[in-house]
Amino acid sequence: MPRNILLDIAYDGTAFNGWQVQSAGRTVQGELEAALARIHGRRVVLHAAGRTDSGVHARAQCANFETDHPSIPAEKFREAINTQLPLDLRVMRSREVHPEFHARFDAVSREYRYYLLHADIIEPHLRDYCVRLKTRPDIRTWNRMAAALCGEHDFTTFASPTASVEHHVRRVYAAAFYPEREFIVFRIEANGFLWKMVRSIVGTIMGMDPPDVDRFAGMLHARDRSLAGTTAPARGLFLHRIRYE
Amino acid sequence: MPRNILLDIAYDGTAFNGWQVQSAGRTVQGELEAALARIHGRRVVLHAAGRTDSGVHARAQCANFETDHPSIPAEKFREAINTQLPLDLRVMRSREVHPEFHARFDAVSREYRYYLLHADIIEPHLRDYCVRLKTRPDIRTWNRMAAALCGEHDFTTFASPTASVEHHVRRVYAAAFYPEREFIVFRIEANGFLWKMVRSIVGTIMGMDPPDVDRFAGMLHARDRSLAGTTAPARGLFLHRIRYE
Repeated sequence: MPRNILLDIAYDGTAFNGWQVQSAGRTVQGELEAALARIHGRRVVLHAAGRTDSGVHARAQCANFETDHPSIPAEKFREAINTQLPLDLRVMRSREVHPEFHARFDAVSREYRYYLLHADIIEPHLRDYCVRLKTRPDIRTWNRMAAALCGEHDFTTFASPTASVEHHVRRVYAAAFYPEREFIVFRIEANGFLWKMVRSIVGTIMGMDPPDVDRFAGMLHARDRSLAGTTAPARGLFLHRIRYE
Repeated sequence: MPRNILLDIAYDGTAFNGWQVQSAGRTVQGELEAALARIHGRRVVLHAAGRTDSGVHARAQCANFETDHPSIPAEKFREAINTQLPLDLRVMRSREVHPEFHARFDAVSREYRYYLLHADIIEPHLRDYCVRLKTRPDIRTWNRMAAALCGEHDFTTFASPTASVEHHVRRVYAAAFYPEREFIVFRIEANGFLWKMVRSIVGTIMGMDPPDVDRFAGMLHARDRSLAGTTAPARGLFLHRIRYE
C-alpha cells in the first residue's frame, strides 16, 4: 500500500525561477522532484499547496507525494531528500498523512508576509529579503487600508491580468502591518490568493501618496486592474504558513 | 587642502575573499578602492579599522581616505561610491574627519557579534548568516566562560598560529551570550582582536562537552594554542561596530 507523505519546505527564492517546473530555468519543484526521482528510481509527482513566483521565498511551503519506497520511514524522508538538495532549499519536516490528503485542496488558508524596511540604505545581508521604504510609513492609515481587504471580495483589481482562473473572489481572514525588529511586516492570511495578489496590494499601498483609505477601498470594490499601483518586488515576500484542518 | 573622509561600510562577506586586497580574488578593499579610483581618476588608498576574513560580514566597518576631489561634498561620497559598487557592499555613511584621523589607530574598541541558532535545520535564507547548534546551549555556563575573557589577557590560546603580531595581549571590555529573536548571539567588544580570535573562542565554547568554566579559564591562562577547540565558521560572524573617541 503506497504511503502519502507531506513535506514542509523552506527556500531562499533568490536563485529560483519560482516553484513550478518550467521549460527552462531552475525551479523548486524541479529540484525536489529530481531528488525524489533519485530516491525512488522513477518519476514522483509532488503536489504543492500553491505556487510561488520567481524570487519569492518560503518558510513553510507544503507539498505531498505518494511513495512506494519499501524502507524509508515517513520522518526520515526529510533527511533523505535534503542530502540530495542544493543549500537554498530544505525540507524542514516530513510526515505521513491520510491517503486522500492533498496539499493544495485540503489547505484551509495560506499566510504570506511581506518585509519592508524604512532606511536610507539596506544592509547588504538583508538585500534579498526585504524592500526599502523611502519615507516613514503612516502605519495607522496603512492598517485601515489592510482592514478594508478583510472578508470576501472580488480581488480583480489586484489580480495579474495574464492569470487564467475561474473567478477572483477570495476570503481574507487577516491583513495587517506591524513592526518587527527593524522591519515593517505586512501579514495577510486568506483561503487563497490570485497570482501576484499580495505584491500588487503591497505595491499599491506603498505607492499611495498620500495614503487614502477611501480611495483604496474604492479601488478594491471597482474590480478594475487598471486602478492598481505597481507590483512590489518578489524579494520582500515570504510564504509563511499553510493551514490544514 | 585635501580632506579626510571616513566611511561606514556594510557588506555581505559570503562572496568576498575578505577585506584585504590579495593577489587573487574579490575583496572588499579591492572593490572600494576601484570605486574610489574611478571617482578620482587615480589610485586612492583606504585605511580600515581592521581586516575581516573571507566570509565574515560587516555592519559598520570603518575606513578613511584622503581626497583632493574638487566638488563632492563629504556626505555625498556615500552615494558617489555606492553607484560604483556591487550590491553585496554598501557605504552606509560618509563624513569629513580631522586631517590626522586614522580609522585603525584612532579606534578605541571593536565589537563583533556571532550568530548561533539551535535548530534541526536552518531556514535557507539564514544559511549564510549564522551557525547551527546541534544541542540547546547552557547559556548560563557559557556566560560564565565569556566573563572569564573580560579584562586584559594574553590571548595566545585563541590566536591563529600563522599570524605575526608583536604580542597577544588584548583588553576585552564586554563578552556575553544573549538571546535575540531565534538566535543566540555572542557579543564581544575589545580594544583589538587577534586573527580569528572571535571564531576560535566561539568554536572552543561550542565544542566543550560538558561546558566547564574552570577548564575554559585554564585554557585561556595557559597561553597554549594547542588547547583551543576548532575555529567556528566565518559565516556566523559580523563586525558590528567600531568605536572612536
